[in-house]
Amino acid sequence: MHEVTTVLFDGFETLDVFGPVEILGRLENEFNLHFHSIDGGIVKSSQRVPVLTESLSSLDFTDYILMIPGGMGTRKLVKDEVFLDHLKQLALNAQYILTICTGSILLARTGLLKGRKATTNKRVFEWTNNFPEVNWVREARWVQDGNIYTSSGVSAGMDMALGFVADQLGYDVAKKQSIEIEYEWKEDSTWDPFSKIYSSVK
Amino acid sequence: MHEVTTVLFDGFETLDVFGPVEILGRLENEFNLHFHSIDGGIVKSSQRVPVLTESLSSLDFTDYILMIPGGMGTRKLVKDEVFLDHLKQLALNAQYILTICTGSILLARTGLLKGRKATTNKRVFEWTNNFPEVNWVREARWVQDGNIYTSSGVSAGMDMALGFVADQLGYDVAKKQSIEIEYEWKEDSTWDPFSKIYSSVK
Repeated sequence: MHEVTTVLFDGFETLDVFGPVEILGRLENEFNLHFHSIDGGIVKSSQRVPVLTESLSSLDFTDYILMIPGGMGTRKLVKDEVFLDHLKQLALNAQYILTICTGSILLARTGLLKGRKATTNKRVFEWTNNFPEVNWVREARWVQDGNIYTSSGVSAGMDMALGFVADQLGYDVAKKQSIEIEYEWKEDSTWDPFSKIYSSVK
Repeated sequence: MHEVTTVLFDGFETLDVFGPVEILGRLENEFNLHFHSIDGGIVKSSQRVPVLTESLSSLDFTDYILMIPGGMGTRKLVKDEVFLDHLKQLALNAQYILTICTGSILLARTGLLKGRKATTNKRVFEWTNNFPEVNWVREARWVQDGNIYTSSGVSAGMDMALGFVADQLGYDVAKKQSIEIEYEWKEDSTWDPFSKIYSSVK
């Protein structure tokens, strides 16, 4: 059984979190899900979903999988040194780290993406210019480098989560999950029409 | 501004709710989201997401959009006359009703799908045999009949929500939302490879 925690903050993007949570959470014999925030209590997504969280100080397991979502809340958090210190400690103690959307920007701010391949939301890809020490991949649904998985914007988190399940438990387990939720899994991590859409807009 | 409420219950399917919530919730000038349960308080999804809800008795708006998810919790609720009475009242007062996955089975139990076209999760499609008064459509991503939209399993709710947005606000608004969340919208409501997969399994 893997413990999984998602770090939540006000203004997280709803589907960044609950797409992957749907997929990992269905495998209830494999993944045990938690939701943490710095102080615990109710945290609201950008789409105003109120979720009950545990405080980081109550986190008492090791070798966990850490999920870091993006969302409008990240704009403030990249300047919040207290949050970033907590996030860095959480990430240093994690067995695997999965970021969705601009969650990779938060992880980049901790310094732990240095020298790693990673991706992020294609609409705000220019944000990556602030982190030249990361090997950013523009065209990718998701990117894996060692124990760190990073995905493109919002819905890409579901494809990454299925890719993570495939790596951990085998392709057939991931494929079966995708069919059960009637989701057309983008199995190819390089599939990314959105990088082209946003490149051509500019 | 449309008021939107999702009726939550223990054992709702996470993505049934938060896929459509992501899409409607991003259009914050158009849709104002609420989460209700019979008694209010924390309700947990099948994937153990704790969400804070308001009690139905505190619902004080009219002409709302009602969302009804599915999930394992529906197995118990189809026999819960108190819940079904509440759901029927909620549905009778709604301007539009959107169901996801086996949420349509709950709506069928209220009698309000009589004579209407509808669909549901393809994996448990045989459940529809209990409701011969409904015109069930096996092969469909989602179905619209008057003010009632019903979707196939879990992830199909996102495509239906985008279809609903297209009907209300125009195709371009829906398409723009799908691109912003990097989601490949299944725009054709008859797209449904899953109905064939599950038909061939039996």
